[in-house]
Amino acid sequence: MKNKNYYAILMAGGVGSRFWPISTQDFPKQFHDMLGTGDTLIQKTFQRLSLLIPKENIFILTNELYNDLVFEQLPEVTKRQVVLEPAMRNTAPCILYASLKIQKENPDALIIVAPSDHWIEDEATFSKNVQQAFDFCSQNNALMTLGIQPTFPNTGYGYIEFDKTSAKAIKSVHQFREKPDYETAKQFIDQGNFLWNAGIFMWSVKSVVQAFQNNQPKLFSLFEKGISAYNTHSEEAFIKENYPKAENVSVDYALMETSKNVYVIAAEFDWNDLGTWGSLYDKLNKDSNENAVVNARTLAEDASGNMIRTKKDKIVVVDGLQDYIIVDKEDILLIYPKTKEQDIKKVLQKVKDKFGVQYG
Amino acid sequence: MKNKNYYAILMAGGVGSRFWPISTQDFPKQFHDMLGTGDTLIQKTFQRLSLLIPKENIFILTNELYNDLVFEQLPEVTKRQVVLEPAMRNTAPCILYASLKIQKENPDALIIVAPSDHWIEDEATFSKNVQQAFDFCSQNNALMTLGIQPTFPNTGYGYIEFDKTSAKAIKSVHQFREKPDYETAKQFIDQGNFLWNAGIFMWSVKSVVQAFQNNQPKLFSLFEKGISAYNTHSEEAFIKENYPKAENVSVDYALMETSKNVYVIAAEFDWNDLGTWGSLYDKLNKDSNENAVVNARTLAEDASGNMIRTKKDKIVVVDGLQDYIIVDKEDILLIYPKTKEQDIKKVLQKVKDKFGVQYG
Repeated sequence: MKNKNYYAILMAGGVGSRFWPISTQDFPKQFHDMLGTGDTLIQKTFQRLSLLIPKENIFILTNELYNDLVFEQLPEVTKRQVVLEPAMRNTAPCILYASLKIQKENPDALIIVAPSDHWIEDEATFSKNVQQAFDFCSQNNALMTLGIQPTFPNTGYGYIEFDKTSAKAIKSVHQFREKPDYETAKQFIDQGNFLWNAGIFMWSVKSVVQAFQNNQPKLFSLFEKGISAYNTHSEEAFIKENYPKAENVSVDYALMETSKNVYVIAAEFDWNDLGTWGSLYDKLNKDSNENAVVNARTLAEDASGNMIRTKKDKIVVVDGLQDYIIVDKEDILLIYPKTKEQDIKKVLQKVKDKFGVQYG
Repeated sequence: MKNKNYYAILMAGGVGSRFWPISTQDFPKQFHDMLGTGDTLIQKTFQRLSLLIPKENIFILTNELYNDLVFEQLPEVTKRQVVLEPAMRNTAPCILYASLKIQKENPDALIIVAPSDHWIEDEATFSKNVQQAFDFCSQNNALMTLGIQPTFPNTGYGYIEFDKTSAKAIKSVHQFREKPDYETAKQFIDQGNFLWNAGIFMWSVKSVVQAFQNNQPKLFSLFEKGISAYNTHSEEAFIKENYPKAENVSVDYALMETSKNVYVIAAEFDWNDLGTWGSLYDKLNKDSNENAVVNARTLAEDASGNMIRTKKDKIVVVDGLQDYIIVDKEDILLIYPKTKEQDIKKVLQKVKDKFGVQYG
């Protein structure tokens, strides 16, 4: 029997625009089978979390636009578990809102907040690390994160500096450092007490609500007024009226960077945020020419290092291309150098400007 | 009124496999709108010929496979005008067969034999040159060709050597020279009395039938036996039985290279055989980056000299590619260097070997 106090908040409201043209406003990355395994990313994430957490305690935080996609892809989920944001207000407001709903249902809840679109293959070790964190949170007033052992000086991630004097698995956090420059990132790695922030948080509902109360009194008082309405028929009206008044702020900024009781556990599993076509390429199996191919059937000559994705069984003949992203869908074909993958957001903007917003 | 004695035989049985994946066994090049003008190549050719030749006198020589495509694309054409080859036997047998049918219908016929998939934009000058040739053929026992002024030492074409002493527009032909090597082709051009063989022939039906009788007695006697059957209900049975017995031989080899009464008129119009994606690229209008685009809408950066074709209005984002053929259709995507366009036949063979003959 899984612990009835274990809860999850799955963050599923983002778009992942660097995965354009597959990930779009209407059909974001987490709802696609990016790995070609037969499961979408949110399905894989839901399955992974459900090893430790009762399925009925996994809440999906998403946008109204994706309500239907959630029920389609996660048929076991009920309406109670889907928390819709009526407006885009970054992560702090929606996490506070969902936490207050969960607290009303179960004041002893232990919650993991996790993105719905990351790659974690070793589910057993993931469960083990989350279990360790839950055990700690049940005993301590702690805000915890899962830190990822850095493998190179990535300048696109946030870093977590932990107390290097501690020999324990769970360490006190000194500070969060947002996207450093390359030299700083190198120093972080050399120092040995920095981890990547993967946006995975764990805490008791009591601790997180208290942290909001202390650190974000204005935001807290906005959502506190709704406590009598949450999980009742009055909830929708209250949220529709008040949610848009919330400040646009991330949970990192609102809680983690300002609290003293922040702890980190270093993940013992391999992780990838699948943030770009290149990071997806890294995680996929390669063919004999080092091309990563999803859905397509390829005839490649003098072509290697390419990330190729089409609809099922489309034939792709490619000659003389190295390290390209080749993505084909019904009405869009992208042929783009992997080295410029960070510019795909700009490309998307240009496509929307030139051909219409419906293509993003 | 157009001259009732003027006839055309449109050759429409080939496949044009260097235009794969657009041109396929099931749907060859001449039935595609290769230029993005709204008309297919056979429609354009039919319209061009009909400026001089009564529409009902334009015969289409094709394969049974393409019978439906012909009637679909040329709705004015009747069953009488479509001559089906029950077997692939190169150009001589089918031209003899069609000529005997036409001769039975009109012994005074003057015939132009022309490919259905070439590019000729200047229709007025084309008509003028054909008229000159017809006038000559009506007065003389002549086998005529339309020769193209060579613009570079192309080693893929046949060359026609004409009598350089003649000052007339219509000159006697010395010899035909099939695909020369580069040095020889250069010599031909330097000599000044060589033209490209475009596979466009003109003659009276009397002259061509007589030439077959003299030069190809075996072939002639095979088809002569059917004269009573042609243009009657007995024709189909006769052809089904006898056509496969015909020798596999081209009209160039069967008549032109062996006859003494061969003449050429130098075309005064611009011509392109649209033999490859590169030659199509040359004839299309280019965008500001020198990309030739058919049907697609493009966002090209650091991308020039590309030949891009998709279904109507598909968006193509391309970055960092020069001189590529990018062709997308429902189930096949080709990304291939323009410099290797001659290898597309080999690619097609590999695709058929690997994925099945249905893709060719």
